[in-house]
Amino acid sequence: MRHLLETKTLSRSDAIEILDVAEDMADTQSREIKKLPTLRGRTVVNLFFEDSTRTRISFEAAAKRLSADVINFAAKGSSVSKGESLQDTAQTLQAMGADAVVIRHGASGAPRTLASSGWISAGVINAGDGTHEHPTQALLDAFTMRRRRHGAASRGKDLDGLRVTIVGDVLHSRVARSNVWLLNTLGADVTLVAPPTLVPQNVTGWPVRVLYDLDEAIAADPDALMMLRIQLERMGAAYFPSEREYARRWGLDPERLRRLSADTMVMHPGPMNRGLEISSEAADSARSTVLEQVANGVSVRMAVLYLLLAGEQSEQATTGSDEGGAR
Amino acid sequence: MRHLLETKTLSRSDAIEILDVAEDMADTQSREIKKLPTLRGRTVVNLFFEDSTRTRISFEAAAKRLSADVINFAAKGSSVSKGESLQDTAQTLQAMGADAVVIRHGASGAPRTLASSGWISAGVINAGDGTHEHPTQALLDAFTMRRRRHGAASRGKDLDGLRVTIVGDVLHSRVARSNVWLLNTLGADVTLVAPPTLVPQNVTGWPVRVLYDLDEAIAADPDALMMLRIQLERMGAAYFPSEREYARRWGLDPERLRRLSADTMVMHPGPMNRGLEISSEAADSARSTVLEQVANGVSVRMAVLYLLLAGEQSEQATTGSDEGGAR
Amino acid sequence: MRHLLETKTLSRSDAIEILDVAEDMADTQSREIKKLPTLRGRTVVNLFFEDSTRTRISFEAAAKRLSADVINFAAKGSSVSKGESLQDTAQTLQAMGADAVVIRHGASGAPRTLASSGWISAGVINAGDGTHEHPTQALLDAFTMRRRRHGAASRGKDLDGLRVTIVGDVLHSRVARSNVWLLNTLGADVTLVAPPTLVPQNVTGWPVRVLYDLDEAIAADPDALMMLRIQLERMGAAYFPSEREYARRWGLDPERLRRLSADTMVMHPGPMNRGLEISSEAADSARSTVLEQVANGVSVRMAVLYLLLAGEQSEQATTGSDEGGAR
Repeated sequence: MRHLLETKTLSRSDAIEILDVAEDMADTQSREIKKLPTLRGRTVVNLFFEDSTRTRISFEAAAKRLSADVINFAAKGSSVSKGESLQDTAQTLQAMGADAVVIRHGASGAPRTLASSGWISAGVINAGDGTHEHPTQALLDAFTMRRRRHGAASRGKDLDGLRVTIVGDVLHSRVARSNVWLLNTLGADVTLVAPPTLVPQNVTGWPVRVLYDLDEAIAADPDALMMLRIQLERMGAAYFPSEREYARRWGLDPERLRRLSADTMVMHPGPMNRGLEISSEAADSARSTVLEQVANGVSVRMAVLYLLLAGEQSEQATTGSDEGGAR
Repeated sequence: MRHLLETKTLSRSDAIEILDVAEDMADTQSREIKKLPTLRGRTVVNLFFEDSTRTRISFEAAAKRLSADVINFAAKGSSVSKGESLQDTAQTLQAMGADAVVIRHGASGAPRTLASSGWISAGVINAGDGTHEHPTQALLDAFTMRRRRHGAASRGKDLDGLRVTIVGDVLHSRVARSNVWLLNTLGADVTLVAPPTLVPQNVTGWPVRVLYDLDEAIAADPDALMMLRIQLERMGAAYFPSEREYARRWGLDPERLRRLSADTMVMHPGPMNRGLEISSEAADSARSTVLEQVANGVSVRMAVLYLLLAGEQSEQATTGSDEGGAR
Repeated sequence: MRHLLETKTLSRSDAIEILDVAEDMADTQSREIKKLPTLRGRTVVNLFFEDSTRTRISFEAAAKRLSADVINFAAKGSSVSKGESLQDTAQTLQAMGADAVVIRHGASGAPRTLASSGWISAGVINAGDGTHEHPTQALLDAFTMRRRRHGAASRGKDLDGLRVTIVGDVLHSRVARSNVWLLNTLGADVTLVAPPTLVPQNVTGWPVRVLYDLDEAIAADPDALMMLRIQLERMGAAYFPSEREYARRWGLDPERLRRLSADTMVMHPGPMNRGLEISSEAADSARSTVLEQVANGVSVRMAVLYLLLAGEQSEQATTGSDEGGAR
């Protein structure tokens, strides 16, 4: 792998490889000394055009556990805010010797532009771009589902037949998109549940079933129920019911929680709006995988950094970019 | 020790142990290569809900000198500012593998909530909470006083009979509170001097003498005179005289400085308002311990991190938390 | 060397030594593992009173490649913004064990004040002060020119007879000033080109030729053409033509680019205003050294940190400060 830009074009074998390496990384994270010397001397730049402390520190922890040097570049107050182009920022980081650039950007496609432009040879990892994708989130979600389902026998496995229901503001959610593609690649059956105004128009082309009624989705007994974060600041012109109305119709409240099977996973990418899309009873229940997701996030990001930076130099293949079409 | 939350419940033996380990750390800081491998692979998170560059970099330097990885988490612009609860932030840091969380928070008691909630197993260090406590500040102050008094023979000693006068806005000062409790535990005699409006109502329950006249306190020939920082932004509804009036009545001006004994320590936690609570003549005099306090701060924080993270795993005792009542 | 404050008083031999050590550093940067153990255990503080992500991360990368610990201290939101003096900030950093302080400050002379005050023993590196100097920028520019001219045979060489033309807002540019002094010391011939309102009044005392017409300067066939960044926010009361007018008269547009010799270097300190002082055709042409300058910046800063921190302890000489007058 040269880059990780999206799950849409990520092959099944590359996805399984990332999850399997993440299993190795997770093993090291249960030791008292969690640090590996693998990426000593490599430089990872966190290039964040949008604030995201959680994602940034997850990547920062992952890189430091592998002994890489980490440089945080927040675009605010930087030359970017003085009008510097993405090209110049990228080429500058490359010239300073960045081996990987973890980029979060408000514009869909910015990471791909970075990777396919020829501006840099550093590996590019998409940490969230516009409403496009957030591939490491989907990978850590898949890792979490695989572990809950297969336990110690997870390596090499996919998610064949797993029934996953994703609930909420699909329209604005890059997390939902990355999950839809990856889950489909790994053999899972995906259902989306959303208010009609928060379903993308092009959803007919997605490998999913769409419902508008959460109770109907729960009655179908999903293996995993993934509640998306409501980001009120992203609603813009989209119609959004009142918070109370949203919670009543699409929130995972205690009553709905009780109707779930005992082994249905309750997932959330965080940070949670407790009482809005998810109740505290659900968030803190034994079904909840929320904290496993966070812990697995570090392992998955370690795996991605490892595969991008410590892989064979001769490998020419590109994952998740236009150039990778041959896989 | 599991946590360091306050000095009020810190036992004399634990306090002496911290000061003694800090002596060992201070010895290493006078070497050309100041770095120890002790905490290699451990992750220390600086979780700062209030800006405090000084305290943050002191902890950051301490952790790095012990070879720990440091992740800075400023709550501003983070998911915290998007409404995430302290519980979710804490559990997220724990899930990412934080071994210690250094927390500064505007709400008194937030570090204790973090430590006693069961949300995290990481060690919690209070770096200042509301008007409650700032225990490492008091420990570095005690370390500084002990060293000035006992020099190379400090180890194992307390501050028996040392007469310490704390001057200024006691009402809003967590530094004053942490010092009062620790100094009392270590056997010192504490006098508070403050404008009547800046003395807490419950001071009658504290092991201190209260004066309102700085000149009377100076006439009593204290061993240490600790000038508190005036934080005008904290005055709120409290009556505060004009700055000129405050400096005239409660500031350590050159004339008062001359009346102090040659070996009276002049202390200040920094940053100083020169010309308000302390004159430059006092701040820069041979009596001043201001820079020793800063240097000792790194040693004391190294000691606390060491005792929390490198101590015996089997130790169940909790220091400075409700659970520690048995000691 | 104890400090690096300016190029104006930097001796030819010290300048050549920095450039030669930077050659050694550049060699290590082409390896897969770029990290050296040289400054392990040393602490470098980036003390930035003005935002400058590029310069900060260049120093941060340089320090980390040498295995130093780096602490970033942005003055915004710190005790500095609460009114702390430069003296107290500096003494605090010193007391915390800083071995080097990299300072950027809005006031010309602040780094010199820091270095000559006796407040600190740490090495001071000027990373840009007011309209005074930005010495590492000039050193990386000289390094870039020397490498383009002499290639692998650069060591020990100066820039004798090199004809360098600096174009733009000389009035406000510390980059221009640092380059003028260093280039003159290294034997280059310097021409300045600027709108009449953006030429300093005291330029008559500088070792330069001044032109007002860029086309005349280009006709003279310079070896290097350095385009300064236009910082509209610095214009203040100075007369500045419209952006379009500036670009037309003093911008390096495609037509002017074609008139340059094939081996004329096109330089820019970055970040670039593409379309204003420099066209994309010029910025991205084979003549452009822009990215070499960025890469060389890390090597030059590694060299400066190395010379300041790993040099012989007995050396008393001061570089670029008043005390160094004897050289």
